[in-house]
Amino acid sequence: MRTKYQSFVITMQKIADVEHSIAVLNWDKEVNAPPNSSAVRARQIATLSGMAHELFTDDQLGLLLDELIKDASSLSPKQLKNVELTAKRFHKTKKLSKEFVERRSKATSSAYDAWIKARAANDFALYKDALKNIFEIKREEAKLLGWKEHAYDALLDEFEPDYTSAQLDTLFVEVKKELVAFAANIRTKQQVEDSFLYKFYPKDKQWSFGLDILKNMGYDFGTGRQDISTHPFTTSFGSSDVRVTTRVDEHNFGSMTWSCIHEGGHALYEQGFLEEEYGMPLSKAVSLGIHESQSRLWENNVGRSLPYWKAHYSKLQDTFPGNLKAIELNTFYKGINRIEPSLIRTESDEIHYHFHVLIRYEIEKALLEGTIEVDDLDKVWNEKYKAYLGIDVPDDNRGILQDIHWAFGLIGYFPTYSLGSFYAAQFFDQAKKDVPELVEQIKDGDNSKLLQWLREKIHVHGMFYSADELCKKITGEGLNLKYFMDYVREKYGKIYI
Amino acid sequence: MRTKYQSFVITMQKIADVEHSIAVLNWDKEVNAPPNSSAVRARQIATLSGMAHELFTDDQLGLLLDELIKDASSLSPKQLKNVELTAKRFHKTKKLSKEFVERRSKATSSAYDAWIKARAANDFALYKDALKNIFEIKREEAKLLGWKEHAYDALLDEFEPDYTSAQLDTLFVEVKKELVAFAANIRTKQQVEDSFLYKFYPKDKQWSFGLDILKNMGYDFGTGRQDISTHPFTTSFGSSDVRVTTRVDEHNFGSMTWSCIHEGGHALYEQGFLEEEYGMPLSKAVSLGIHESQSRLWENNVGRSLPYWKAHYSKLQDTFPGNLKAIELNTFYKGINRIEPSLIRTESDEIHYHFHVLIRYEIEKALLEGTIEVDDLDKVWNEKYKAYLGIDVPDDNRGILQDIHWAFGLIGYFPTYSLGSFYAAQFFDQAKKDVPELVEQIKDGDNSKLLQWLREKIHVHGMFYSADELCKKITGEGLNLKYFMDYVREKYGKIYI
Repeated sequence: MRTKYQSFVITMQKIADVEHSIAVLNWDKEVNAPPNSSAVRARQIATLSGMAHELFTDDQLGLLLDELIKDASSLSPKQLKNVELTAKRFHKTKKLSKEFVERRSKATSSAYDAWIKARAANDFALYKDALKNIFEIKREEAKLLGWKEHAYDALLDEFEPDYTSAQLDTLFVEVKKELVAFAANIRTKQQVEDSFLYKFYPKDKQWSFGLDILKNMGYDFGTGRQDISTHPFTTSFGSSDVRVTTRVDEHNFGSMTWSCIHEGGHALYEQGFLEEEYGMPLSKAVSLGIHESQSRLWENNVGRSLPYWKAHYSKLQDTFPGNLKAIELNTFYKGINRIEPSLIRTESDEIHYHFHVLIRYEIEKALLEGTIEVDDLDKVWNEKYKAYLGIDVPDDNRGILQDIHWAFGLIGYFPTYSLGSFYAAQFFDQAKKDVPELVEQIKDGDNSKLLQWLREKIHVHGMFYSADELCKKITGEGLNLKYFMDYVREKYGKIYI
Repeated sequence: MRTKYQSFVITMQKIADVEHSIAVLNWDKEVNAPPNSSAVRARQIATLSGMAHELFTDDQLGLLLDELIKDASSLSPKQLKNVELTAKRFHKTKKLSKEFVERRSKATSSAYDAWIKARAANDFALYKDALKNIFEIKREEAKLLGWKEHAYDALLDEFEPDYTSAQLDTLFVEVKKELVAFAANIRTKQQVEDSFLYKFYPKDKQWSFGLDILKNMGYDFGTGRQDISTHPFTTSFGSSDVRVTTRVDEHNFGSMTWSCIHEGGHALYEQGFLEEEYGMPLSKAVSLGIHESQSRLWENNVGRSLPYWKAHYSKLQDTFPGNLKAIELNTFYKGINRIEPSLIRTESDEIHYHFHVLIRYEIEKALLEGTIEVDDLDKVWNEKYKAYLGIDVPDDNRGILQDIHWAFGLIGYFPTYSLGSFYAAQFFDQAKKDVPELVEQIKDGDNSKLLQWLREKIHVHGMFYSADELCKKITGEGLNLKYFMDYVREKYGKIYI
């Protein structure tokens, strides 16, 4: 006789099978698919998505969840958590009608097309109507989902459960206060040299170096692989098949290198989920902020640190002797940490990055409140870039049109990037306290204790703890910007003297 | 208001989306998947397969098909054919219970594992029980499906609809009569030289040459791509995404080359199906025999012909000058058509190939009849190889264990390989009659008229005509071994003088 919990597991694993199949179709689309196959692939993805949605919104599953919650005492704490988290998602999903989901899907599909056209013409005007439509439908979505204090909270919850725009407001006030002054101070210092990063770095050698980096991080090629795609990403088909992609720019050493480390960080998280929790919340990420903390910790706190390059720089010099033999480690280290305001979020340094996020957050919130209009968005954007970064935006592609997120309907997503960096600093600080020999090990090219710490403290739990609970459990307190500020003060105080 | 036919199309296209998604998962498994991902991938494929099966066996679809057939006068001939062919498959599928399908799936899964183990140990004994189980379950399947003259017909129908074992018996009697004498005669002649094919052919250069071959055939890389896999295959995710795989042996020039041409032939068929018939029988292959006719025609009638290599040989010589500069075209041509009995079906020449098939057919039929036993199969196998090919089988791996087909439950499959060669010869003969300049064009490196002929005569029709109807429509008569015998007599009469 099958228990109710077993029935629940079977249903959830079936849904996971379909969702992971969709992930395979998407991965293949980005990595392999021939140019003229996009229409047929789009319909295959749409069909499977519809089937996954049907399975997940099935009333039978709702009844089963109700019964399991009623009989909670028969469940282990982990089982109960799986049931509760699924029930939360179930009831949330049920608030959106099929009609609404289809309308939203059409809106994002049109917005994507409009964004592509606007990008090609470098003209925001071609994107306005579609973007208006997106924000309208997301306002409607927020209403359907419900919220207490701000419509933004309903949307943010999708990416950063239990976090609120009130908390973001408080956080970003602090960010502004601390980082504006900090960045202004750096601008008064002597700039560091980084031209050696833009010499010719042949593709094949970069590729092998990237694979070595991933292996050294502990990324398991027995349950993963790396490929090339236009935009780097990580995708999981279950914790035994987690893939990363990267891109190679032969005239920009950093382009591939830190994307490898960044995606590697995401992938280690996904590879660290428990196989026995396949399809369950306990083998899923806590939140996008926590996911991003894993990529940022590796990318910045480790991958742009002096100890890390003490371990790897001589090999790098041997790989590209013409470019780097004459460059000392310390010069290299400073170069890869150059601080300079710039137009494009994804190319930003780790200080100015948060201004990019802040601007998007302010715009999203104001649009939801109706205090600004999509029609004025290019102007608003450019004013904010002048105000926060002190730079003029020369055209729409390097301004308002640079990110695709809004076209996909991802409103409330950007702030999780900043949360990721702040969590990363707080976690890495704690890891160094918990494992005194951590930095020495990294300096020796051995990241195993760091990975072990991340596995035990974060990865194996999946969604068992909320982001806030996890952060408190690990570090003894909730998210605190102090750790990020300490990290950048300490680091950049030595780079910009 | 949606017509009944439109509802039918929507259902069939949904099923096609799921089936093509399964094909993507399988392709990825063979081409990309990391080593430790097989368990999770297997369960994803099983889940989607179950969903496709549920969709296709839904009683609603059955009712819809009944109503459409009742109201046949409202349908165009093409629509009616789609309905009739689907109804045939529907009622056939309904004859197999879910319990039976699951049991069969377990049997093939166990047989696959047993075959892998037996191969590793080079010992048929480890495969016997699983194979007995397979033949038992296939006998049961034949009974469930029903048949008139021979249980074999029920199984053959899956691969070669409307063809019977009585027809195969007649055909293979002829094959034996003609080919045994023909092969014996060749053995009395001076053997041709082919050692130059086994020199060192670097992988990269072979790979580029293979891509050029595919392009030259007319394979569209806008709707396809080639990758490496252990065993070459063609797979379709819809006619706008048809992929081929190959393998490269650096010490065997032919291994990749003719697998490229062979799979290219299959792929051109699939790329030639009408997009507007997506998911419908009219965008599917008539039968495996007809599918194989497309690969064999390109592989042998074209790809091993003198005119073809007149077009491509000088480029080949330039690509591998060390191996081929001193080899004249005629020597090369003879070398690639060397006739010699050998142990492995997939490495066989185009004459002895049919003995390999004949032996498998005789064994399958006798096992279904119960006139031989699985226990004796290695002995039976070796006796037949001695009798038909005059060779001793040194071990099980080079004998009874060489093919995986039976482990997958593919009984009644092998004969379609021979049918493919025979149809190919008959079609190619007709193409030359219909297009007098065909061979001259091929000699100039231009295959466009051949492809156009195949597209118009065969590809665009999908399953509209049965194999027999198609053959009669194109050539004025049913399948006739004469064309194959004329082809080999003419060709080998000049090679083995």
